[in-house]
Amino acid sequence: MGLFSKEIKTKDDLFVHTLRDIYYAENQITKALPKMISKASNPQLKQAFESHLSETEGQIRRLEEVFRLHGVQPKGVTCEAIDGIVKEAESVISETGDAEVLDAAMLAAAQAVEHYEISRYGTLATWADELGHPDCARLLRETLEEEKATDSKLTRIAETSVNRQAA
Amino acid sequence: MGLFSKEIKTKDDLFVHTLRDIYYAENQITKALPKMISKASNPQLKQAFESHLSETEGQIRRLEEVFRLHGVQPKGVTCEAIDGIVKEAESVISETGDAEVLDAAMLAAAQAVEHYEISRYGTLATWADELGHPDCARLLRETLEEEKATDSKLTRIAETSVNRQAA
Repeated sequence: MGLFSKEIKTKDDLFVHTLRDIYYAENQITKALPKMISKASNPQLKQAFESHLSETEGQIRRLEEVFRLHGVQPKGVTCEAIDGIVKEAESVISETGDAEVLDAAMLAAAQAVEHYEISRYGTLATWADELGHPDCARLLRETLEEEKATDSKLTRIAETSVNRQAA
Repeated sequence: MGLFSKEIKTKDDLFVHTLRDIYYAENQITKALPKMISKASNPQLKQAFESHLSETEGQIRRLEEVFRLHGVQPKGVTCEAIDGIVKEAESVISETGDAEVLDAAMLAAAQAVEHYEISRYGTLATWADELGHPDCARLLRETLEEEKATDSKLTRIAETSVNRQAA
């Protein structure tokens, strides 16, 4: 974005900017997940990461459909929030030797990512309604529900196997 | 954290590290909120930010009690996730001229912060239980419930006044 002009003038501009932000974030997540899959020891956690990777690819296609319905080209914009979450996760992971502690750290990082996405898709769906785009809102809410389901699945794993082993 | 040693060896190390991470995050939030209060136009939003600031100060004291119960000194560690969320919010805010669009952008940023905190306090409370610290878990869940309530309050504001005005 430019430094010398106010580039976000309308709610529509804000909607498109935030759409680009989450588009970039989802693409970063598809890059981070394969590393997490390869490092996960707990079979349930590994499987959850694997299924979330294919789900994320579907969510990217759904975002591209939202861009199309809104009449703009799919394009990402650097999302410092997701970069920070991923950087912090990588830093903690690099400090962790024990396999079960590593699983717990990766699970926590994945939940931080899910919650970021839940907040963004909730915001975007509300704005899509306000802007008179129920078709976009419907697609954004489909992803929102998937993210909430993934977070609940991760909570169940955290409360049972991963933490039980690592304790 | 050191670059040449694995400093997070146990679940206890991971718990303390994550406690320091959220302690840093809460302190950063107390620095960001006064700016958001001064920039907010919508009276409900301004009031929500004001009450969240005093709530955050209470949450910091509660974290200090968790540190004490766990037998470690309260200390922060740079949380790249919250730094990224705040940096992104500041960038969007600086690009936004219109007062009502600015309110919508700040509200969305505040919800991203709330969701980060919800994920961290949920994780920490689960780990405190696993580590046999029900006293710490209880305090962490008190804050978790406050964060969820703040997020719900912000959703109500988003769905009514702020977005209605900005649309």
